[in-house]
Amino acid sequence: MDAIEVAVLAYDGMTALDAVGPAQVLAAVPGVRLRWVAATPGARRTDCGMAVVADHALAAVPFPDVVLVPGGVDVRPVARDEPVLAWLRSAHARTRWTTSVCTGALVLAAAGLLRGVRATTHWLALDALARHGAVPVRERVVEDGKVMTAAGVSAGIDMALRLAERLAGRDAAEAAQLAIEYDPDPPFTAGSPRTARPAIVARARRALTGSRGDA
Amino acid sequence: MDAIEVAVLAYDGMTALDAVGPAQVLAAVPGVRLRWVAATPGARRTDCGMAVVADHALAAVPFPDVVLVPGGVDVRPVARDEPVLAWLRSAHARTRWTTSVCTGALVLAAAGLLRGVRATTHWLALDALARHGAVPVRERVVEDGKVMTAAGVSAGIDMALRLAERLAGRDAAEAAQLAIEYDPDPPFTAGSPRTARPAIVARARRALTGSRGDA
Repeated sequence: MDAIEVAVLAYDGMTALDAVGPAQVLAAVPGVRLRWVAATPGARRTDCGMAVVADHALAAVPFPDVVLVPGGVDVRPVARDEPVLAWLRSAHARTRWTTSVCTGALVLAAAGLLRGVRATTHWLALDALARHGAVPVRERVVEDGKVMTAAGVSAGIDMALRLAERLAGRDAAEAAQLAIEYDPDPPFTAGSPRTARPAIVARARRALTGSRGDA
Repeated sequence: MDAIEVAVLAYDGMTALDAVGPAQVLAAVPGVRLRWVAATPGARRTDCGMAVVADHALAAVPFPDVVLVPGGVDVRPVARDEPVLAWLRSAHARTRWTTSVCTGALVLAAAGLLRGVRATTHWLALDALARHGAVPVRERVVEDGKVMTAAGVSAGIDMALRLAERLAGRDAAEAAQLAIEYDPDPPFTAGSPRTARPAIVARARRALTGSRGDA
């Protein structure tokens, strides 16, 4: 079986779980080879107190089967990084799937890949996504053609399970779900602006606004 | 407000999501300071195709408020790493919370911290946990005194939300849940050996056995 090459874009300021959630699901799928890429190989700071190391230059992974773009609290720098955008355009022309998590969708949009495309992002960034010409959809995972986008941060895990099914079949996807024991049981129901108390929505908005979603 | 120092143990072979899931939750809690630690600072390989960089030596973070130990496919090397075990024992004497995700519980057990303690781990490692003198509990998150343990991999997110509530109150925990849009919607129901089809349980067991849970 040929390997399924998944390129995960790393950049300073990325939200770690946006990338690691899907990567952990896909790491459990037989045949998947994860390649963390950056303009130049090396460490990139995340918002979780540590850096991740991208071993591969963008140019070393020109035609991955899957591209995964994580979001970040402020994606404006990466959304203006022309070598990254050029790589995204070129890779997208041949991918099986081009995917993003959270505000990673704004990076895909900045590369011009979401014009007229149904897509989602973090709940606080849906308006910004619309301004970039995408058709924002308030769902947890959205597929439009070969573009698959996830809502905020943890939604990447749900997206990756769907992606695993598309790439390797339902049994492989379910086995990956069991490997990571993904039987979620959040102690609160505050995970969506639809279900969180208004005071919590206001609090999260205050904590995140001014940065996330301004790309 | 004094910072709440959370030490995340990094080691070669760790499961990235075990650490990053909780770290992402806690990063959204005001006052939390995440410190990734290792015997010596530097990069540690994960099972997701990249390394994470621990900036701090164990000795530089002797008395964190919270210790978080992730699991890995094979935790035997770290579970025999005496400097790590000595640090865990010493730190545990003063922590507010000592926590693990997945087979990280086997590392806490190897340090002697789980004798007679109710704890959980990845579903495939519950027997190994019992052999280490812990009282294995088949729940997603288990608290016993100041020891909080999570089941496999993704369960660390649920654990961290409970931990966030204990550390900073329910509103802060709910705002963190909303910040990471943790409104899970797995496309399958295979996340637990109780709900997965028998063929999927057998498949996941084959993929993981011989390594995970043998500490």
